[in-house]
Formats: sequence, structure tokens, C-alpha cells
Amino acid sequence: MISDLPEIITRPLVQAALSEDLGRRGDVTSQAVIPADRMAAFSIVTRVPGVVCGLELARQSFALMNENLEFTAYKNDGDVIAAGTLLARVAGNARSILAAERTALNFLTHLSGIATTTHEIQKSIAYTGVQLTCTRKTIPNLRIVQKYAVRMGGGRNHRMGLDDAILIKDNHIALSGGDIITAVKQAKSYAGHLIAVEVEVDTLEQLRQVLDEGVSLVLLDNMSIEEMRTAVSWCKGRCQTEASGNLRPDTVVAAAETGVDFLAMGYLTHSARYLDIGLDYADNQNILKK
Amino acid sequence: MISDLPEIITRPLVQAALSEDLGRRGDVTSQAVIPADRMAAFSIVTRVPGVVCGLELARQSFALMNENLEFTAYKNDGDVIAAGTLLARVAGNARSILAAERTALNFLTHLSGIATTTHEIQKSIAYTGVQLTCTRKTIPNLRIVQKYAVRMGGGRNHRMGLDDAILIKDNHIALSGGDIITAVKQAKSYAGHLIAVEVEVDTLEQLRQVLDEGVSLVLLDNMSIEEMRTAVSWCKGRCQTEASGNLRPDTVVAAAETGVDFLAMGYLTHSARYLDIGLDYADNQNILKK
Amino acid sequence: MISDLPEIITRPLVQAALSEDLGRRGDVTSQAVIPADRMAAFSIVTRVPGVVCGLELARQSFALMNENLEFTAYKNDGDVIAAGTLLARVAGNARSILAAERTALNFLTHLSGIATTTHEIQKSIAYTGVQLTCTRKTIPNLRIVQKYAVRMGGGRNHRMGLDDAILIKDNHIALSGGDIITAVKQAKSYAGHLIAVEVEVDTLEQLRQVLDEGVSLVLLDNMSIEEMRTAVSWCKGRCQTEASGNLRPDTVVAAAETGVDFLAMGYLTHSARYLDIGLDYADNQNILKK
Amino acid sequence: MISDLPEIITRPLVQAALSEDLGRRGDVTSQAVIPADRMAAFSIVTRVPGVVCGLELARQSFALMNENLEFTAYKNDGDVIAAGTLLARVAGNARSILAAERTALNFLTHLSGIATTTHEIQKSIAYTGVQLTCTRKTIPNLRIVQKYAVRMGGGRNHRMGLDDAILIKDNHIALSGGDIITAVKQAKSYAGHLIAVEVEVDTLEQLRQVLDEGVSLVLLDNMSIEEMRTAVSWCKGRCQTEASGNLRPDTVVAAAETGVDFLAMGYLTHSARYLDIGLDYADNQNILKK
Amino acid sequence: MISDLPEIITRPLVQAALSEDLGRRGDVTSQAVIPADRMAAFSIVTRVPGVVCGLELARQSFALMNENLEFTAYKNDGDVIAAGTLLARVAGNARSILAAERTALNFLTHLSGIATTTHEIQKSIAYTGVQLTCTRKTIPNLRIVQKYAVRMGGGRNHRMGLDDAILIKDNHIALSGGDIITAVKQAKSYAGHLIAVEVEVDTLEQLRQVLDEGVSLVLLDNMSIEEMRTAVSWCKGRCQTEASGNLRPDTVVAAAETGVDFLAMGYLTHSARYLDIGLDYADNQNILKK
Amino acid sequence: MISDLPEIITRPLVQAALSEDLGRRGDVTSQAVIPADRMAAFSIVTRVPGVVCGLELARQSFALMNENLEFTAYKNDGDVIAAGTLLARVAGNARSILAAERTALNFLTHLSGIATTTHEIQKSIAYTGVQLTCTRKTIPNLRIVQKYAVRMGGGRNHRMGLDDAILIKDNHIALSGGDIITAVKQAKSYAGHLIAVEVEVDTLEQLRQVLDEGVSLVLLDNMSIEEMRTAVSWCKGRCQTEASGNLRPDTVVAAAETGVDFLAMGYLTHSARYLDIGLDYADNQNILKK
Repeated sequence: MISDLPEIITRPLVQAALSEDLGRRGDVTSQAVIPADRMAAFSIVTRVPGVVCGLELARQSFALMNENLEFTAYKNDGDVIAAGTLLARVAGNARSILAAERTALNFLTHLSGIATTTHEIQKSIAYTGVQLTCTRKTIPNLRIVQKYAVRMGGGRNHRMGLDDAILIKDNHIALSGGDIITAVKQAKSYAGHLIAVEVEVDTLEQLRQVLDEGVSLVLLDNMSIEEMRTAVSWCKGRCQTEASGNLRPDTVVAAAETGVDFLAMGYLTHSARYLDIGLDYADNQNILKK
Repeated sequence: MISDLPEIITRPLVQAALSEDLGRRGDVTSQAVIPADRMAAFSIVTRVPGVVCGLELARQSFALMNENLEFTAYKNDGDVIAAGTLLARVAGNARSILAAERTALNFLTHLSGIATTTHEIQKSIAYTGVQLTCTRKTIPNLRIVQKYAVRMGGGRNHRMGLDDAILIKDNHIALSGGDIITAVKQAKSYAGHLIAVEVEVDTLEQLRQVLDEGVSLVLLDNMSIEEMRTAVSWCKGRCQTEASGNLRPDTVVAAAETGVDFLAMGYLTHSARYLDIGLDYADNQNILKK
Repeated sequence: MISDLPEIITRPLVQAALSEDLGRRGDVTSQAVIPADRMAAFSIVTRVPGVVCGLELARQSFALMNENLEFTAYKNDGDVIAAGTLLARVAGNARSILAAERTALNFLTHLSGIATTTHEIQKSIAYTGVQLTCTRKTIPNLRIVQKYAVRMGGGRNHRMGLDDAILIKDNHIALSGGDIITAVKQAKSYAGHLIAVEVEVDTLEQLRQVLDEGVSLVLLDNMSIEEMRTAVSWCKGRCQTEASGNLRPDTVVAAAETGVDFLAMGYLTHSARYLDIGLDYADNQNILKK
Repeated sequence: MISDLPEIITRPLVQAALSEDLGRRGDVTSQAVIPADRMAAFSIVTRVPGVVCGLELARQSFALMNENLEFTAYKNDGDVIAAGTLLARVAGNARSILAAERTALNFLTHLSGIATTTHEIQKSIAYTGVQLTCTRKTIPNLRIVQKYAVRMGGGRNHRMGLDDAILIKDNHIALSGGDIITAVKQAKSYAGHLIAVEVEVDTLEQLRQVLDEGVSLVLLDNMSIEEMRTAVSWCKGRCQTEASGNLRPDTVVAAAETGVDFLAMGYLTHSARYLDIGLDYADNQNILKK
Repeated sequence: MISDLPEIITRPLVQAALSEDLGRRGDVTSQAVIPADRMAAFSIVTRVPGVVCGLELARQSFALMNENLEFTAYKNDGDVIAAGTLLARVAGNARSILAAERTALNFLTHLSGIATTTHEIQKSIAYTGVQLTCTRKTIPNLRIVQKYAVRMGGGRNHRMGLDDAILIKDNHIALSGGDIITAVKQAKSYAGHLIAVEVEVDTLEQLRQVLDEGVSLVLLDNMSIEEMRTAVSWCKGRCQTEASGNLRPDTVVAAAETGVDFLAMGYLTHSARYLDIGLDYADNQNILKK
Repeated sequence: MISDLPEIITRPLVQAALSEDLGRRGDVTSQAVIPADRMAAFSIVTRVPGVVCGLELARQSFALMNENLEFTAYKNDGDVIAAGTLLARVAGNARSILAAERTALNFLTHLSGIATTTHEIQKSIAYTGVQLTCTRKTIPNLRIVQKYAVRMGGGRNHRMGLDDAILIKDNHIALSGGDIITAVKQAKSYAGHLIAVEVEVDTLEQLRQVLDEGVSLVLLDNMSIEEMRTAVSWCKGRCQTEASGNLRPDTVVAAAETGVDFLAMGYLTHSARYLDIGLDYADNQNILKK
């Protein structure tokens, strides 16, 4: 069990993913050509280097398919691994393993892709001390595991949803019927003692206004590097700064060097590529079990 | 309603995605700063060129949030569009629109990303007459909409799941207790008259064997370009050929020029990047409704 | 809406049945050959005489598929109808209608089969005044609609489940650690004022015992016709009698003539055949709607 | 675990069926009269000969009710058995066993009824070499297990749903806006390399047209025996033939003798009667366990 | 397992309650400060005297969170316990226990509150022989466990829902289009042999009417103590009497002394206060397990 | 629609509550005695004064039962109302209204009870400026609506679940392997920029330690009034204070007078009594609709 993401939260995702693949008849190929009682052992191996994430979901995929499968992990989520690393072994009924293979790998390769991308970008800006965060630009119905992968890659999570922090954006102000200061006051009053309030500013003029209002966290949205630098200097000692706006691997370093506290990148969850990981049949193994 | 993907199939996905974002309190920011009866209109606009996909899911996102929202689409899924294209407008209660915004956009940007990637790659090999197909390497629980996006981008779907065609791979043969010919015979017998049988071959020697067995569809897995060319020449007039094996945008053209019938690319669904699409507040519009 | 079986109870059944048929891509045949905007009207017509049941579930099948379909019923559940009777018409988008056709008909033909079987058997014993009841021998997950069909056919429902009446059988007594009288006393005490208690007796000797205990409803299980007659005479004016035990259409009349109050037939729900009802394309109709 | 129908697919059906029977209070009879810690063993025995199907679902019914119950099967699904055959034993907490009894038996008797009917009809036409198939005329929400029962009885499955093969019927052609040839061309183009295409023909004239078009599977619908014979002679060596149209046990032999390849019978799933199987209390057994 | 409320019925409630508390990230506090492999043991102890109820739900809460937690109950539901009583111990992974703590206690304190309230009121009227029953005035989606708590406190359940007994109230008669006698006749005819019929009467005149009609159970609604006494005298030997109408702990004794058979109190389920029960860290225990 | 609690969040609760009451047959009483097409209008009226909450859930209850029912609310959630106030009217099919009545009222009376209790206690301490908050001691599966009721009664919400703020309690420190200061440091590091951190202190000594650590919110747990007063004086200008520990209506005023910022009362959600609200048949109304 990953204590950072309880199985009771992920089990429905894994169950649905298995059902999606098994359809109404299960794995017809294995049923056609593999004897029902055939036992086998397989290795889960990385084809490329990266940061592994999703081993527990892989384990759950095999366990939900057949509780008698033996799954042994040799690495932990968040580990930086080389190409060709043995991540885990799974042994038991061959049909069951092949029926769950793709589901297990789809979780593993997708989440490892996010963790790896996060890790690489974070590493590229490590000398600045800036912290990467993800956004709500996630793939529908995968948010909790995608955000977990960001954490495993060394990033931080921004809001999990619309309900766990206030983030005042331009549209909110435009529709509030008042100015940014009124909106900030309303937000702080509504938020109470346990909900954080962050305010997006598009200009230095807006920033000046909210700083005077005593905001403790601002989001600098789509500012130029120069504006960001000025903003950071104004905020020093007064409030934390986060920057966002189509940040990509090739633009993130310049943004980080402005000295903001956080960089929010939707890219981590909406555009990370998968990490190539495969399941290999371990022909001559002795670890078969009844 | 998209007749190619009935709402009864997608509604649970949209409902779950909204719940994921709304959490246990809904959109606390809008509740704090926007009056409950504020009406507004917004435009959904592409920031970059591409192929749009997911408009119906965007419509369902707003409709499930509040059935009184007005959603008007100006484009159809599968349309090739320029940057700055108005895809749709949504008007009505401002809080409701902002509460559903991210869910609608997350579907739209993810699926448009897949459709765009598919379209671009298919275009790059159009002169060869080869057809792109996707694989089962999809993001968990998104398969039906990801595969829909591949279709909208001009690709074809391979299997929807383990149950709707037989695909004999190396592991199946290794575990079958027999050789490739025996496995093919078993598969054809099991399949009956409505299930297709495809056989993966890793070598030309295997190909020769299965051709003699009368297989009508082979998957050439991880073959060199030269082997693929030989394979295609052998298969001409005898069986259809599909090639797979870590195909990427920069390797797909050479593969297509071998003359295979299909190219199966997991890349389309596991590594396509999102297409940037945004929701803009249309301040001075006259389309507000009661 | 059938007030006897609220839509909120049946909607999940209908939704699941549609999903079961639509799978992961919907109706590929209609998508391939019928234009997306083709409108059409169809008639739902009986091929044989019988008692119709399931019209509301048919309506819900079409409505859940596409809320714009027009469904007009010309008969009510429970109506005795001739072969060739027009039960209903459905008009609107052709693809939507064909996608829901089989689900609608599967409900209609199965439930009409039960209603018809119930009606015929009840009619055959009408002169005796005996009342047919169904049992818990139903097809899994269809009980509420199967029992509804029994009511529509003129039968009565026995228990809806294990929790809404006490029925003491031989196994209960054998396992109770006591005799039949002790079991009856315990059951009456447990039941309180709102749960009915029925006691199964296999012999006249058992019947004598429970009659002395003041039971108001006995189930005569697998008794001979002669025993049943004796049992009825003993019970007259003291308690109601129900008979069970593999009753079939050819044995039910003799059982009814013994004068029992109720005959419990699992046959009604586990062995009734379907009633042939079809959907016909009404080529030249004028009832098409936008 | 049945590898041909993974537990992850059937568990929701079994869970729902148990809930349907247990209602809001569970088995009030056992709670009233049987001590909470009473242990017992029961035998599951056929009352009549037939083909058994559903043993794994019976096992799951008891296991989901109480994971400590011991279930031992002595037969396998698909076995031809005599009346009075011991199929399985279940031992453990008496209340738990009685609470799951009816659910387990309802699966077992219904599916064994289908397997038995399929087996008998298939046997009656065995000398012709014709293969029985089922249809989509199934009981709502039971399709995957009903089709499994058909396989266990020696039949083949036709489509699992609307999405896994194309079957062009008269209504599709009427609504396609073109003729049968156009529809076939559209279907083949839509289908691609993994979806089978079957074409229903009602007349020999239609058959001639589609044969010229190179269709590889035709459904002869409601043809006379004579027409079927002619159709078969035309198709020999060119395409496979399937016949359908209210086939029943008494008409199926004549149809089989025409030499078609497949006979599609809705009867197998919509009108098969249950097979009588019971649970007997095994009073003097020694197999009780803690 | 509580045989009076099978786990298969309660598990979905427990699972939903855990999810409600864990949200999208689980217990962030424990994840932040407690080592992932820390083991611990805790005691569940009452702070005040009362009747315990919900121990099995508490056990399920810990087991669903982490199947390796050890839970040992020292008391049974329905036990009358003193303040400071050790109800149970739970040992194992510390993070898992703290993650499930609140869910387990919320069930336990709420249900023990109902059982205690029921027990106290029942005790206060014990000398009259009158039996308390609950009503359908329950907290939404908690009915089955609230009614279980009433039973554990020594009360009886009235209807579990609208479908398991007939209770004719004033509104039914007003809307029936006829008088109370007609309504009673219709109800008895509809009910058949297994559904109980109870009739609410607001006046002695109504009571006279229904007594003549042979009703066996009447609900005296909002009658004065004097009227109740008269009603009871009329009903003696003819039908059972139940009284209702805003009964509270301070009015129930007078009502009980009228000699009615049952007193129906919504108060038991809608206004019982919780029983204070806590989870204490057992620092120096030796019961820790791997 | 309440914009503060979107229908998409509450609809599953309402649907489940209706199903819980309707069971497997729906409202057998109305079906027995009220004509299927009977129309009627009813008033929802308070019997006692209080704060109303749950009107939108009541509306949803009727709407989900039958979308043609007309529901008109005359008050808003959060309104302080007198006894005998008309809250809403509902008109339409009589059977549908009676079938949904109890579900609608159970939501309304339970949530109005919480809102009323919250309002009364908050009013009793209004002169102190202290703010009431609720806790996670809620009734399982009702948290989101119970917390909504607290807001409507003028209280504030504490955490919605374990995942949306850190609250370090005594058990966390005991199990952390370190002291309170280490735990606070770990918590702040884990929390990042959007998760609030609150620290429970049981003694003034602990308070001194965490104040030095720069904590901005402390929970004074089970302190004496005198300790609380000292604590408040220490915290002035340095951090916010919240007090908890079995606060009840009779102890809350003394606690409020200590000058803490917040008082956390589990009582609001686990021990508030229901508010008596009824549905009256409006015999002579003219508001009936087709």
C-alpha cells in the first residue's frame, strides 16, 4: 500500500481500467491459445531511463485480476532508474497476467512519463531554488494519480480542484461587479481560516494594488521576464510569487531565473510523454508458484 | 448528439470529471466573488491551429453542470481549424460556466491534441496510401474517447479491448505449449465467423510459416525497414500487413514507404500533446439570455 | 410514468442494458450506412397474441438513448392483445432508434412472455378462485421487473426478497436446534407487527402441529393432491394455504382444484418463453418530426 | 476462477443479485430461527439431467456473502451430468449459506438451462456439421453470462453487442438512402481490418447482388428451406452462410440439413427453460469446519 | 460478520464514508509527520455510559482502509456499557489507523447514540409492556443502519420503506376519492397474503369505522391521552394499537400508560444525540504486530 | 440551483435516498388507494420557528421522482422563519408527490435542524465576535450537506476531509518519532503554499513552543477557561486561536468570552435535533396543473 495514495482511492480507477480492456469476453487470444492452468513469470523492465511511478497501481491491476498472482516490486515510486532496470516481477496464472498486462503498463508508462518530465524540468532549474507546481489542466478523471506522479517527480501540487483554495482570475474580477480589491476582500472573508487565497495579476499595476491589500500569494500570469523580475522585487518579504502562462521545457529556465517562488506548468500533466516500460516473459525462471 | 459516440456512453465520463473538479464544495472562488445571478457569455477559441475534437463533450460538461446554459458550436469534431478560430459560445449563469470551464477544456484540449497529432502524421504519409491505426496503449479509462479522437483525426482504430479481436503475440506462442502454427489454428477455431485473427511475427521465417497457414492479417513487429519491405512483397495479394514498434513522427515515413497496409502507433494516444484552446469572456456581447 | 414501478427504480436497469448493447463504439452498422441526420418512424407490433408488458421500459430505452425521440404507446401494460397489434410508435433520428431497438424489444418480449404465461395459467384455473403467485426463483437482477410482469399478467407477488416476510422451510427447522413449534414461536416474536410469517409443511403431521400454534399462512410443499385436499380441509377457517413444488402448466389445474388459496409457481419467472414482438420500419408514414 | 469469464467481469452481477435478494435487512427467517454461530454443510445436486453452467457464479455468490464459506466444486461448467449428480458442496456458517442460496441457484439453474438447451439442439444437428450461434435477443443485463452459457453448451456466440461486428439488415438498407451494394461498400470501408461485416439477405436476388460484391458472410433471414438450399449452393466456396428467423427446436433440423454453416437462434437465450438444481442440507456430514 | 446486517449490505456505506473523508489526497497530516512504516495500537473507549452499536462498521472501516490492520472487539452491539469501557483495539500501520479513525468513530458514536436513546426510553416504559418502534423519519441514506441501531437498543422497526407494508394515512384517504372504508378494502385487496395493512385514525369515529371493517392494526395519530385510552379499550382483543405524534422522552411515559401495544417515535432516529466514544493511543502496549 | 452546492454534487445523494425509501415496489399504499391520474397540491410548512435549510434538496427529491411536478419555493436556505411559515408548494401527480414526501422532508428537517442549532448558538455568542466552526464529526455520507447547513446557519466550515488542511494532533506527535517542533516543521514543508497548517496544543507549554515556531493557527484542545484566556493573550497579534473540546450550548458562552477567534463544535453536526416541518394537503387549492 502506498500510504500517500490509499488503495481505497485508486481501486475504482484500476477496476474501471481493467473492465475497459477486458470488455465482455475477456482476453480471447489467451483463452484461445494458452492452457488454462499454464503458470508463468514475467519481468517489468524499463526500456529507457526515467523516474518510475505507478508501481502500486500496477500491483493492484494484477491483484484485482487474480488475487493469487505474486507481484514483487524492486523499486519504489519516485526512484530515478536507468534503462533496462528490473522494476518488478509478476508470477502466476499466465492468462491472468496477460489479461492485466496492458492495464498495468498503461498506468505505469503514463505516470512514469509525468514523473520523469517533472523530474527533468525540476532538475534544470534546481540551482534557482524555484519549485515546480502542476495545475488543474489534467486529463479528465486521472487527476489524483497525475498529481501523485507530479509529487513523485519532485514537483508540488497546486489545487486538487475548484474547492480547495481560492484563485481569483481575470474573469472572476470582470464578473464580480467590482474591482480587484473588492474581489480580494470578498475572497478573504469567504475563505475563513483554512482556505488559501491566491490572486492572479496580469500587470504590475494590479500587483501594486493587491500588495497594498495584504495578499500573501500572487500568480503572475503571462508576464514578460522583465515584468516578472520587477514583480519579484516588489513582493520580496511581502508575499509569495507564482508564475504561469504556457511554460514549456524551453522557456522554464528563464522564468525560474527571475526568482519567483513557484512555476505552475500545465505541461506536466497535459503534455508529458509516456515512459517506455515493457513486460518480458521470463522463460527460464524458477520463481513459478502453484 | 454525436451519433458516432452516443451520449449514454460518454455521460458517466463527463459527470465523473466534473465531480473530480468540483470536490465537496464546488467553485469557492466564484461563490466568493461573483453574484449568484450574474449572467455572462464566453467564447471557446483555439490559440493554435489543429484538428478540433471534443466539442460534444464540452457541450455535455456545461449541460450537466446547469441544463439552462446555452451552448452553440460553430465547428464539428474533425474540422481542421486555424489559430484564433471561434469553436463555440456558451452563455448563461456565470458561476455555472466557470465551474464547468476546466472540465470542458480538459476534454477539448486533450482530444484535439490526439486528433491533431493523428491528422499531421497521417498527412505526412498520405502519398503512400498507408493507414494509421492506434493501439491499446491508451490512458486508463479514456480509451473510448481517445479512440474517437483518433478517428476524428483520420486514423483507424485497432482493437477496442482484449475481447474484440485475436492478436497472437510472441508471449502467447511461448506460453501456448506449441509452435506458431498450432497457435494460429487454435485461434481460428476459437474465433469463429465474427472475430478477426491477426498474428504478430518478429522474423521473416515466422511470416513464411503463417502465410502458409492462410492468415489474412499479420503484424510485423519491430522489423527493420528492409525486413518490412521483404515482408510486404511476400504478402502482396495474400494477406494484409500492419507494422508496429515504437513508431514516432520521425520514423513513420520510412515505415510507410515500405508499402505496409497499416501502421499501428501507440504514440497517438500515449504521447500526443494537448492543443491549446481557451475560454474567453466576451464582455460586450449581446447574446446574454435570461 | 408507470406509477406502479417508478422510473427512478427502473432507469438504472435500462441504462445498463443500453450500455451492454452499445459497448465501446455504439452501433457501428448504422454509423456506417445511415446518414447521421436521417429521420424515421417505426412501429412496434406483436407477431403473436398475448399480454403486453414492458411498454414503459421500451419508452425509457428510446428516451435514454436520445431524449428527442417521440414515443407513443397505444396499449397499456396488462392489456390482452391479438397478433399484429400496434403497441407503439417511435419516431426521430434513425440511428438513435436502431441503437435502442434491441434493448427496448428485449425488455418488452421477455416481460410480455412472463405476463402472457401468467395470464394463461391464471385463466386456466380461474373457475377455482385460486390465486397464482410467483417465487424468488427469478433471473438474477431482473426480479423487480419480472415480478411487475407477473402482476400485469394477473398474478400476485410472493416475497420480493429475503427481508420482507418470514418463510420457515425445512432447512430452517433442521438448523434451528429445535422443533417446528419452537421455530414458529421464534419467528412470530422476531417478526413483530408488520412482517408476515408463513410456515412450510411437508407432511400433514407438521400441519397439525403448526395449526395448533395459530399460524395464519402455511405453504404446502410437494404434497400429493390427496394430501393437499386434506390439508385444505383442516385449514378451512383457520389459516390460508399456499401450495408449491414444481408446478407446471400441466399440473397446476389439479393442484388448483384442491381448493388451496394460492399456488406458488417459480415457472412464471424462470421458464416463461418470450413473446414475439418486432419493430417495423414504417416507410410511408407522415409522423416524422424534426 | 474461470479463465473464460474473469471474476472482475462477473462480480458486479453477483453482488447486485445478492443485494436484490437481501434487501434492507437480510434473511429475516434465518435470523429469527437459526443460531448465529450454527455451522452446516449443504450439497448442490441436479434433479434432472443436463449440462451444468454457472458453478463459478455460485461459488462467487457464497464467497461474496461470507468469505469464510468453503465451496468445493465436483463438476465443471460444460459437463454433461445425470439427474442426482453432486455438483458442489458448501460448508460454513448456516445463516450465510441460506442467505446466498437462492442467488447461487438462480444463476446456476438459469445458465444450466441455456447450456442444456444449446447442447440438446446442437446434438440434434450434429450429423450435419452445422454450428449453432446465439443472437442479441438476450435477457437485459445478463448477456455476458448468457452468451457464456451458450459457449458451455457447445454453441458459438454471434455479436456481443452493436459495436463488435457490422450486420447490415433490411432497415439499414431502407434508411441508407441507397441500395444494398452501396451499403455493403460503405460498411466495408467503415469496418477496416478488424471488424467483420455480415449482410442479411431476404431474397435470392439480394444474395446474388452481394455475392458479386465479394461479401464473405451472409445471413439468410426468414428464407424457406428451398431458398436456403439454393442460397447454400450459390455460396459454396464463395462466402459463409448463416440462417435465422424464429428457429425453434422443432424447425432447426430441417434448416440444418440445408447445409448452411451457422444457425442463429434467439431461442437459446430468450426461451430456454431453467434446469432444476437444488441445495440439500447434508445433515450427517463430517466436513464442517470452524 | 454481524449476521443481522450482512457486510455485503453495509460495505458500500463504509466505503463511501471513507472516501468522503479521504478526499483526493488522503490524510495529509499523517503523511507529513508520521513515518510510513510506523506501527501502533489504539484503544476504542467510551467516555460516557450507554449502549454500544456499530462495532462491526468500525471494524469494516479499518479493514477497508488496510486489510492488514488487526481489530479485536471486546463488546457486542447491544451491550450496555459503563463510561471508560474498552470496546475494541486496533493495531497496525499508524497512518492507516488514523486515516480510518474518524469514519469508524462517526459510525460508532452516531449508532450508539440511537441505541442508547432507544434503550433509555424503552427502559422508562418497560413496566407497561409497551414496545417502542421507529419510523421512516430517518437521516437520508442511513436508514438501514439507523434501524439496526434501534433494534440493538431494544426497539422494533416499523416499515423499512414505502414498499414493505401499507400504512393508510389521512392524505391517502383524502386523495383516494372515497371514504376510509373504501380505502381499507382497496388496501387489503392490493396487499395480498404477505403485506401487512395498518390504518391511521385521527378520531375515535374513524376508529369505530375501521374496527367494523376488520382491520388488525391501527395507528392512533396525535390523539389525546384520553382518546388513546378509549381507543385501546375499544381495540382490546380486536386489533393491535400503535400510537404516534411527536412523542418525546418527556411525553412517552404518559402515552405508554394508555396501554397501546406500540409507540412509534421518529425521535429515535432524527433527534438522538451521539454517544461520546474516542480512540486512544496505547503507547506502551505489547500488542503491536508486524 | 443553489450555486453554493451544485446539483451535480447532491443529485446522487437524493437519488440514493429516494431508492432507499421506494425499495423494490415503490409506494404500495398510494398504488392501492389513490387513482393513478389524481392530481393534488401540497404545502410545506414549518411547525416551529427556526432556520430553513434543504429547500433545494427537497425540490430535487420531487423532480427526480417525477420531472413534471411543480415545485415553488417561497423561502431561501438560511432564512430565519416563524412557526407556520409556508416554505414551498408542490403540485402534480398525487402518487408521485407522496412517494417523494418523506425523502424531501428528511433532508429538510435534518438540515434545518443543523442550521437552526448553529444559528442559535452563534447568536448567543454574537456579542463576543467569536466565530463557530463545525468539525469532521459528521454523520457518515452526509458531510457535504451537513457542512452546507452549518454555513446556512451562520457558521463556518472547518476541514471538509483529511486532505484539505493539516491539523497536527497529539497522536500525530506521539507517533511522529519526534517532538512538536519537528512535526510542525515537517508539516509546513509538506503543505506548500496552498494547504493550511493548524496545530493542536493541550498545554500552555506546548503553545509557547509552537508560537516560537511561527505557527499562524492553533487549536486549544480541552483547555480550562483560564488556560484559554492566557493562551489568547499570548497569541494576540501572532496567531489565530481556535478552541475545541466537547463544547455544548451551555458551555459555549464561557468559552467564547475568552476571546478566541473560533470555536469548533462537533455538536452542530452530530447532535443537532431535527426541525419539525410537514407536508400538508391543500385541499381547496386552485394551483393544480395538468
